[in-house]
Amino acid sequence: MHSITRLQEIINAELQKRSDDLRKMTPPNLYNPVDYSLEMGGKRLRPVLLLLSYNIFSDAVSEAIPAAVAIEVFHNFTLLHDDIMDKAQVRRNRPTVHIKFSENNAILSGDVMAFLSYKYLLECKSKRLSEVLELFTKTAIEVCEGQQFDMEFENRLNVSNVEYLEMIRLKTAVLLACGLKAGALLANADNIVANQLYEFGLNLGLAFQLQDDLLDSFGNQQSFGKKIGGDILANKKTFLSINALQNAGAELKSELLYWMNIAEYNQDEKIKAVLNIYNQLNIKQLTEQKIESYFQKCRKVFQQISVEDERKKQLIEISNSMLNRVF
Amino acid sequence: MHSITRLQEIINAELQKRSDDLRKMTPPNLYNPVDYSLEMGGKRLRPVLLLLSYNIFSDAVSEAIPAAVAIEVFHNFTLLHDDIMDKAQVRRNRPTVHIKFSENNAILSGDVMAFLSYKYLLECKSKRLSEVLELFTKTAIEVCEGQQFDMEFENRLNVSNVEYLEMIRLKTAVLLACGLKAGALLANADNIVANQLYEFGLNLGLAFQLQDDLLDSFGNQQSFGKKIGGDILANKKTFLSINALQNAGAELKSELLYWMNIAEYNQDEKIKAVLNIYNQLNIKQLTEQKIESYFQKCRKVFQQISVEDERKKQLIEISNSMLNRVF
Repeated sequence: MHSITRLQEIINAELQKRSDDLRKMTPPNLYNPVDYSLEMGGKRLRPVLLLLSYNIFSDAVSEAIPAAVAIEVFHNFTLLHDDIMDKAQVRRNRPTVHIKFSENNAILSGDVMAFLSYKYLLECKSKRLSEVLELFTKTAIEVCEGQQFDMEFENRLNVSNVEYLEMIRLKTAVLLACGLKAGALLANADNIVANQLYEFGLNLGLAFQLQDDLLDSFGNQQSFGKKIGGDILANKKTFLSINALQNAGAELKSELLYWMNIAEYNQDEKIKAVLNIYNQLNIKQLTEQKIESYFQKCRKVFQQISVEDERKKQLIEISNSMLNRVF
Repeated sequence: MHSITRLQEIINAELQKRSDDLRKMTPPNLYNPVDYSLEMGGKRLRPVLLLLSYNIFSDAVSEAIPAAVAIEVFHNFTLLHDDIMDKAQVRRNRPTVHIKFSENNAILSGDVMAFLSYKYLLECKSKRLSEVLELFTKTAIEVCEGQQFDMEFENRLNVSNVEYLEMIRLKTAVLLACGLKAGALLANADNIVANQLYEFGLNLGLAFQLQDDLLDSFGNQQSFGKKIGGDILANKKTFLSINALQNAGAELKSELLYWMNIAEYNQDEKIKAVLNIYNQLNIKQLTEQKIESYFQKCRKVFQQISVEDERKKQLIEISNSMLNRVF
């Protein structure tokens, strides 16, 4: 069994090799942004989950590497296009692709990344490849649906919990689940186990996104890696803001809306005021409970997966590292 | 054998069915632009070529319909994104998607169309499907490369014939060739014949694009369907403008550059002046010769395709209708 750190190294080495190949392709202006996007780094979570899942059933991890690369390239494609749509200027401390190059570059280089992800996936030699392709395509469509919901929620005040959870399922969770199931399929695992891994990934993804929401308002700036309160300043619909709006009485609601509608303000003052409202409504505890409920679903599915404990123990390790806790 | 008109009807009926299905999907704002794009109509050239090629080897045309839909949906995806990048306002007499909806809609609905094209392709039951998927993916990447070259040429005066022909090969010809080869592969045709059909499609596509260039300046407004001189007004790099710039002596070249650089002008006057320069340089004849040379290559490949004449005669018919001439 490979350690998670080792799997990350394997993926980064392979991405480097692919980048080197792309750097020889023409036109350079199409492929330079691809390069730029892939060298941005990150935790390589989705390909790690894929390899880790494959590794449960087979030690020949190298067989699944093209699929791991594919899912990472796909994920980065979504970042390129989302950043245009969200008008995001910075990602991982560097200018986003549409800022560094141009919007047209970000559209077209994003497109080519979507197709490169299929190219890499098609390199996999597996008799279950057509199932993986169907899963991957279904997932890609769902991710687009999730992004559309996310954009629409920006202009709505009455987003419900159910709607929000469905949005993050589509936008974030299904891709993690897809990685886990794809790894199992490529290793020719039993369908039941493959579907359990999907279920596991879905709940892990939901917990992970809710935790991201939580840390953005209540995290430790140093370990979170970006400024606390970004979602509050952007009036972003998150599990926190939705529940605050929903649970607030008349007075707190009007106070919250005041801060959401105000055009000019002191950033620290706005963050402090909104956090104060969240605290009065126990939003932190509410979110922690929701994370806990998804975490319990993960645990339950994990126990059902009929594979030796030794083979599946890394699922615990990665869940713990993703959720910053002990399984 | 189905007639070309019958194949168009089959494709339009199937696209209508797919649109009806998409209209039931959520979020509607993601799928409405897909609908809008698919109901725009057009000649359905790429899916017709695919079915026609399949039909050479098999009468069970219905087996290849999902692939025909896939290639049409993919083509329309490229139109959505190209129209954003080119800032095009109108397509087929209707507002383009980014104008009618929004730029974000055109990006994201375009993305979902790219993945829908894989979804439809994956419905095909054929033992050669993985070859088709590889061909389709390679082609999609090439189409992105072609669009990148096309955008870059806008800002360059020294585009060579070789560069231009390579650009239209990538942007236009490979997709027609892909349709023809995919049809053959799905029908489990011999590899040699499948590759000959690809070659045929490539040369047909190059001739077709050059003819489009020619008609934009020298066509009959009524049969061409759009205003004559659009490329001239937009200073578009075409086979005509590239050869005019290349073949002009000092005096004509400076006259041509004057019209290309002038900020304010009377449209009819500019068109008349540039056509006058083209006429002095025999640009029409030069382009006709180039079209003829690709047409001869088509004929040559056609004769080599070892299939009964009766089965392949519709390739002649569609080539004639595309190039407005008798094979």
